[in-house]
Amino acid sequence: MDEALALAAKGRGYTSPNPMVGAVVVKEGTIIGRGYHRQAGLAHAEVVALDEAGEAARGATVYVNLEPCSHHGRTPPCTDRIIAAGITRLVCSHIDPDERVNGRGIEMLRKAGIDVQVGLREREARRLNEHFLHWKTTGTPWLTLKWAQSLDGRVATSTGNSRWITGEVARTHAHRLRSWHDAVLIGVGTALADDPRLTVRMVEGHQPYHVVLDPNLRLSPTARLVEPGNTVILCAESADPQRIAAWERNDVQAVPVRSHGDVLEIEAVLEALTALRFQSVFVEGGSRTLTSFLKAGAANRLTVFIAPIILGEGLPAVGDLGIETLDQAIRLREVEVERFGNDLCITGLCGAEP
Amino acid sequence: MDEALALAAKGRGYTSPNPMVGAVVVKEGTIIGRGYHRQAGLAHAEVVALDEAGEAARGATVYVNLEPCSHHGRTPPCTDRIIAAGITRLVCSHIDPDERVNGRGIEMLRKAGIDVQVGLREREARRLNEHFLHWKTTGTPWLTLKWAQSLDGRVATSTGNSRWITGEVARTHAHRLRSWHDAVLIGVGTALADDPRLTVRMVEGHQPYHVVLDPNLRLSPTARLVEPGNTVILCAESADPQRIAAWERNDVQAVPVRSHGDVLEIEAVLEALTALRFQSVFVEGGSRTLTSFLKAGAANRLTVFIAPIILGEGLPAVGDLGIETLDQAIRLREVEVERFGNDLCITGLCGAEP
Repeated sequence: MDEALALAAKGRGYTSPNPMVGAVVVKEGTIIGRGYHRQAGLAHAEVVALDEAGEAARGATVYVNLEPCSHHGRTPPCTDRIIAAGITRLVCSHIDPDERVNGRGIEMLRKAGIDVQVGLREREARRLNEHFLHWKTTGTPWLTLKWAQSLDGRVATSTGNSRWITGEVARTHAHRLRSWHDAVLIGVGTALADDPRLTVRMVEGHQPYHVVLDPNLRLSPTARLVEPGNTVILCAESADPQRIAAWERNDVQAVPVRSHGDVLEIEAVLEALTALRFQSVFVEGGSRTLTSFLKAGAANRLTVFIAPIILGEGLPAVGDLGIETLDQAIRLREVEVERFGNDLCITGLCGAEP
Repeated sequence: MDEALALAAKGRGYTSPNPMVGAVVVKEGTIIGRGYHRQAGLAHAEVVALDEAGEAARGATVYVNLEPCSHHGRTPPCTDRIIAAGITRLVCSHIDPDERVNGRGIEMLRKAGIDVQVGLREREARRLNEHFLHWKTTGTPWLTLKWAQSLDGRVATSTGNSRWITGEVARTHAHRLRSWHDAVLIGVGTALADDPRLTVRMVEGHQPYHVVLDPNLRLSPTARLVEPGNTVILCAESADPQRIAAWERNDVQAVPVRSHGDVLEIEAVLEALTALRFQSVFVEGGSRTLTSFLKAGAANRLTVFIAPIILGEGLPAVGDLGIETLDQAIRLREVEVERFGNDLCITGLCGAEP
């Protein structure tokens, strides 16, 4: 199953809206077929693995991190193919919450006389597909909030100097994380101050959509992040319709969302991101944007890069959350720590245990 | 040598002003003697290990993390004992910078025909005795600055709530760190606000001296940290002589140091700590004290406990350091990360590579 999980992860960034799936066909202790889902629309992992195994698959075991699909999508159901291949045992990590599957795949395989086991490496498998699983079960996008700070929690010096707090290895990983999400989101303040490109450059990978929270449409059409066909601006309902129309002519979606004065309602932002069918959004700040998502309880994962430096007075990543006592603090669960060069990356889940 | 280092560490907190030393006698691949320096005044590691090995030590190899001493202190020179025991080979991690030794031990052993090798596990051995080595080479105490913060760099909420940011496992380790230092230091602000005891309670260990920076002698004689015979107050030169005398009558040293108005000069504080013959001082804050030591470049190691929580607006650990650009940041070297329960501990050396 570890091999299946590793294979699945190779599709990271490319399978959305589908989950990452890896499959391994094992016979007499030897792997005779390997497959993973490379990209939405292409063959499923099980089919690739069974193709590789060929006739030898008869009597073999399949390991796959997700329940095989039982429905006709862009490709035929995997269950049919597994049964036809003469597989006698199937081990999967967890069921597929997709309402078209949701246990039906396992039921069909069992009816066909296949011995099915569920639950192996369930935790790792659910972690791998957390974006997909959240989206399938809640209907809303998964939000990862990310920032880079000094050890003492500053994202810039008192004079605004912030390039670069973390080193190249950490920044490369941040690009990798970008490529694993459907969209990257920042506020217009950061867009105007830093003129970032929001592209994936330091690694090879999927290029996410660019989303800017820009209540009053202050972003310039010459901003580097503007990529016609790949950029969405969320603005206030009060935003100038002529400017909205100008963006649309430029093949940039400008979507008005509910707002209080100049401040977009985060709930309305989530609704817009849902309507845009983003399964996952990587929120890169700045401070005002990060704070508003945190305050609204709209973060699923925090990923904080920490450089081993002390800056003293400077700009904090997170502003006022209205927290007065420690038991009101936002607590991370399932915390993981990794090192990237001299920097650390601390990541964990927000909110209560599901 | 790993065994010798592990043995040496068993003396942690008790050997000051001596270094921690562990020794292992090995013959034909078998350990026939183990020893460590338990406490200043008691036998040295080599002697304990040779005692255990007895006659079998003839022709054996000794592994020891520090150059054996060649001088008469409270115990006779270890070199004499090693030669007398008939040891034929000695491996040590590094020389002893003590001016009474400083290579002389190795020279004597070599003259006696013993094959001496220097440098095995030097890095680990120097890390183990960093307090001693710093003190021996600079004449000033080693300063470890420690605080506990949220992931976003806050040591308390906006209303001052700070008990407890980190969990019990992390706090237990903080007590262990206390016990490894000669003295614990805080500012009077923290003393008045929290009335801490500054004792080692959550682990067994050496009880350090208590030092309070209290320019105007605001500390109360009933403060819990006041332990007659074990407490030092550093005050301004302008402090009331009668109150100084009152403290002294209470068997608490009150030492005036140079100050600018109400602010003690950190250089003068270091001079006072040096005069008190502290080899190592554990600076536990609060923010004003930590900031003043950092600003003066008077920190040797930072140890920051990080709870995986977000507090938003709140009290920062570190105040204004006058840092405007990232290249002026205080950079940590040799960063280590450990987990204590849900919390992290990030520690590293301050200042330029020696």
